[in-house]
Amino acid sequence: MKSRWMFAFIMGGMIVGCTRDIQRYGSVIGVKKEALANYKEMHANPWPEVNAQLKECNIRNYSIYLTEFPDGNYYLFSYFEYTGNDFRADMKKMADDPRTQEWWSHTDPMQIPLSNRAQGQWWKTMEEVYHLD
Amino acid sequence: MKSRWMFAFIMGGMIVGCTRDIQRYGSVIGVKKEALANYKEMHANPWPEVNAQLKECNIRNYSIYLTEFPDGNYYLFSYFEYTGNDFRADMKKMADDPRTQEWWSHTDPMQIPLSNRAQGQWWKTMEEVYHLD
Repeated sequence: MKSRWMFAFIMGGMIVGCTRDIQRYGSVIGVKKEALANYKEMHANPWPEVNAQLKECNIRNYSIYLTEFPDGNYYLFSYFEYTGNDFRADMKKMADDPRTQEWWSHTDPMQIPLSNRAQGQWWKTMEEVYHLD
Repeated sequence: MKSRWMFAFIMGGMIVGCTRDIQRYGSVIGVKKEALANYKEMHANPWPEVNAQLKECNIRNYSIYLTEFPDGNYYLFSYFEYTGNDFRADMKKMADDPRTQEWWSHTDPMQIPLSNRAQGQWWKTMEEVYHLD
């Protein structure tokens, strides 16, 4: 969902304001128990080029959470904010980046996508049911 | 985990900066299938006093996501940012608020806490494994 945020900045000594749409995304995916240590190690030390590419693709305030379910399975939950105006184009830009592809070649085999995700998804996109700015 | 953010503001014609710690929280809980419509309806129209109490308790940028798992069970995932400096005290303040208690008297019976959550938790707190500002 979208929030309209007000940004104020200084230009030529004047305070100038502008508004910008922010789209929030929450997603979920499984993670293999035997890959947990490696997944955590990689994400505690992310490659600077991958982080830079995320920023370049208008992703910000991106967090990934890990939790164990009572059945012993592990899941990852991601939250990020998108500040661009063409999400599909920016996601394609991410996917076309060789260093990002290399990162994913390590992380994809650690993950277990939910079988009921939408077609074309890897992480399953969740539905936002509440938001408070 | 914490981020240190820079805020710039204008005071007496001068730009003044300050830093503030932000703690992010990700949590998960089950939700009963038969309560989905009611839960969504309530959260699409939250009580203004409950939202105001969240703000008063230094909670901001709070989102709740819903998703169905392949086994047919439904889960809620929450993400929020805490900008105060005494989380336990602020959570107690929330819990002591009569209108919040009334809200929870409706929502608690709709939820199914994970049996492997930590003692004293309702929503299960997840572990942050990655963050990009």
